[in-house]
Amino acid sequence: MNDIKKIKARTLPGFMELLPNEQILFNKMYDSIRKSYEKFGFIPLDTPILEASEVLLAKAGGETEKQIYRFTKGDTDMSMRFDLTVPLAKYVAMHYGELTFPFRRYQMSKVYRGERPQKGRYREFYQCDIDIVGDAELSILNDAEIPAIIYTTFKDLGFDRFVIKLNNRKILNGFFTELGLSENTPDILRIIDKLDKIGEQAVVEYLGEMNISNSNVEKIMSFIKIDGNAKDIIKKLRDIEISNSEFMDGINEIEQVVNNIISFGVPEDNFTIDLKIARGLDYYTGTVYETMLTDYPSLGSVCSGGRYDNLAEYYTNKKLPGVGISIGLSRLYSYLISEKVIIPEESTTAKVLVVPMTENMNYAFKIASEIRSKNINTEVCYNRKTVKSMLNYANKLKIPYVAFIGEDEIKNNTITLKNMKVGSQEEIKVNEIEKYI
Amino acid sequence: MNDIKKIKARTLPGFMELLPNEQILFNKMYDSIRKSYEKFGFIPLDTPILEASEVLLAKAGGETEKQIYRFTKGDTDMSMRFDLTVPLAKYVAMHYGELTFPFRRYQMSKVYRGERPQKGRYREFYQCDIDIVGDAELSILNDAEIPAIIYTTFKDLGFDRFVIKLNNRKILNGFFTELGLSENTPDILRIIDKLDKIGEQAVVEYLGEMNISNSNVEKIMSFIKIDGNAKDIIKKLRDIEISNSEFMDGINEIEQVVNNIISFGVPEDNFTIDLKIARGLDYYTGTVYETMLTDYPSLGSVCSGGRYDNLAEYYTNKKLPGVGISIGLSRLYSYLISEKVIIPEESTTAKVLVVPMTENMNYAFKIASEIRSKNINTEVCYNRKTVKSMLNYANKLKIPYVAFIGEDEIKNNTITLKNMKVGSQEEIKVNEIEKYI
Repeated sequence: MNDIKKIKARTLPGFMELLPNEQILFNKMYDSIRKSYEKFGFIPLDTPILEASEVLLAKAGGETEKQIYRFTKGDTDMSMRFDLTVPLAKYVAMHYGELTFPFRRYQMSKVYRGERPQKGRYREFYQCDIDIVGDAELSILNDAEIPAIIYTTFKDLGFDRFVIKLNNRKILNGFFTELGLSENTPDILRIIDKLDKIGEQAVVEYLGEMNISNSNVEKIMSFIKIDGNAKDIIKKLRDIEISNSEFMDGINEIEQVVNNIISFGVPEDNFTIDLKIARGLDYYTGTVYETMLTDYPSLGSVCSGGRYDNLAEYYTNKKLPGVGISIGLSRLYSYLISEKVIIPEESTTAKVLVVPMTENMNYAFKIASEIRSKNINTEVCYNRKTVKSMLNYANKLKIPYVAFIGEDEIKNNTITLKNMKVGSQEEIKVNEIEKYI
Repeated sequence: MNDIKKIKARTLPGFMELLPNEQILFNKMYDSIRKSYEKFGFIPLDTPILEASEVLLAKAGGETEKQIYRFTKGDTDMSMRFDLTVPLAKYVAMHYGELTFPFRRYQMSKVYRGERPQKGRYREFYQCDIDIVGDAELSILNDAEIPAIIYTTFKDLGFDRFVIKLNNRKILNGFFTELGLSENTPDILRIIDKLDKIGEQAVVEYLGEMNISNSNVEKIMSFIKIDGNAKDIIKKLRDIEISNSEFMDGINEIEQVVNNIISFGVPEDNFTIDLKIARGLDYYTGTVYETMLTDYPSLGSVCSGGRYDNLAEYYTNKKLPGVGISIGLSRLYSYLISEKVIIPEESTTAKVLVVPMTENMNYAFKIASEIRSKNINTEVCYNRKTVKSMLNYANKLKIPYVAFIGEDEIKNNTITLKNMKVGSQEEIKVNEIEKYI
């Protein structure tokens, strides 16, 4: 047809790109999360995807830094953001004087990590974050409200069976310090975090390999096996004879969180204490959260976060404690689709397809405008000639209603509305269409 | 406080980053445009920001290519998209067999151009695009529907005084071919496009410098000065004695667009033909659009686009004609803010601040959940101790309603709702709150 050299159209591996029906479903989830966050009065933020490398990587290092998309353009060394927390820290440090604290912000945007693409891991993916950032101090009640937001968000997404797991880093730190293992804490946490995956015996062996005494290994194992409901666990923790003050602080904090979480509206079935979770090693300082969908344990945590002492210490001397969570929406969506937990239904945004059956388009266009004015998304099918081909179009796009416009309808100032699912049709006045849709 | 080396927190020049009240206003505009596009049944698309350079730059060259953020990670040469049209072309070529045509898609996302930052020009900015892509053919009626979408979108944004300018590239090409100037057409178009800026005399001089005969310069000048309403202009074009078939095709097409545009619901005051507009030189092949806000001519076109013969010729032999438009939202927003046409009002998403006046938080949390269940965004003020400081917080964030909860309210199972704007307050049942908000 033409002699332009063709390039093979392709999308880079690790970059999610959806078909229309999938995109519509993805957007529904996105919109639902956004609405839930706004229900709690969070403020939207939209920081740039590109930042000065010096700013973005102020803290980074190790694996994170290797994964960064970083480049120089002109004189500027810039990087694509790898999370939404560092940009928040930068933003709060920059605009400290212009913000009202506690600053409750949400951001739901793409972040970038140049890791090896694999199932459920993307190089470009959406994170849906909320954080509450205090100025110098931040009440523990914030830690109790976060689970209420998680709860509402996942209920609004249509889930009933999920558990928000709580822990407190001070409990862990205090406990290991008491055992004289404070230097080993990061390594120990890494091992016990794997308990569910590798089993008790393997954990014991790994701990033994670290030259931890048998008596300490025993204490660790019985500590992480403490179970029961949240109040039971707190009681059992208090029964351990440890006087370490950090340990006690942690227990007091988690108790306040648990005591308030129910007032905030989270049912007992939807939260628990899990002493094994730690969520990263050098960031969180108090409460930590993970959220498991009960029926899909292989998905891992779908919403995680915690309390930190100092959001922006790389940029400012102001002490800005905060607590936040993040939903990895791309990963969640991709899992739910592949497990057929969610199934794309709609293939377009139109709810009504206006099908003109005469040459007189004017009436069809007018009717469409009228339906749209009732906030019903409406398309006029003027690109196809036969009614059969128009219905075919409606079927392919799964448009739920068709409004036929023929001689009679024009004469009677009506439409004949067909419900494409049920197959029924009826001649109605346009201004009554809301009753039928 | 701590001895971590501080990095100065900053945002790169040319990257828009808004304060909360500005962001909320920006999002309102974004949401409004999205809603308008969906009203017409457009399908959302969200392509990656990063593409293989080979794919993204299949066609690019010259200025565009210089502005690309391009880098190599591992073995992959990748670039950040500079518009939403090339990714659409790639997408349609890749998914041709899975799409229903005409494919009506919208995409409202960030694009990147590493140009020198200046007022109203960003390196990262939002484009809000719609395109209707046909398979092999696409009715001219689509060209007539586009102005209806522009009209609805700008009306929904709150504008009344704007004009959608139409032209047709075939009229221009045919006219200049007839004058024997087809090779000079791009240069001539570039000059006449500047008429409003540089004035008639300068245009005549520039044309003279191109060795265009005086008689041709006269013809060009009288051609571009043809005015009147759309039907007048079409009549005057027909009166020019030119038999060139492309010229005639162009007139016929613009006539069909004009004849249908009113049926589609665009009032005569909101569109016109402007023979000077051409919209880029090598892309559009038929109808072209610009949209001017009548009261802000210095802003230039706020919504432009046109008809093209072949969307994806760099990727496929399939002929995919289309028509589309783009709103440069970041630039529009930034202009309207700086000219104080729009003024940020809300500083948070919360509509109600629940203010507990006793130590009993449970009732406050319960009330907040109940208000939220009515889809009213609600925040509980548990971070401040005095009522005065809570009201201060509400004032700073411009939260319009405060719900006081004291001993009486708990006893009576009520709230005292204060309208912060008017100052009035009333004790009401929570389930009646919708009546007051």
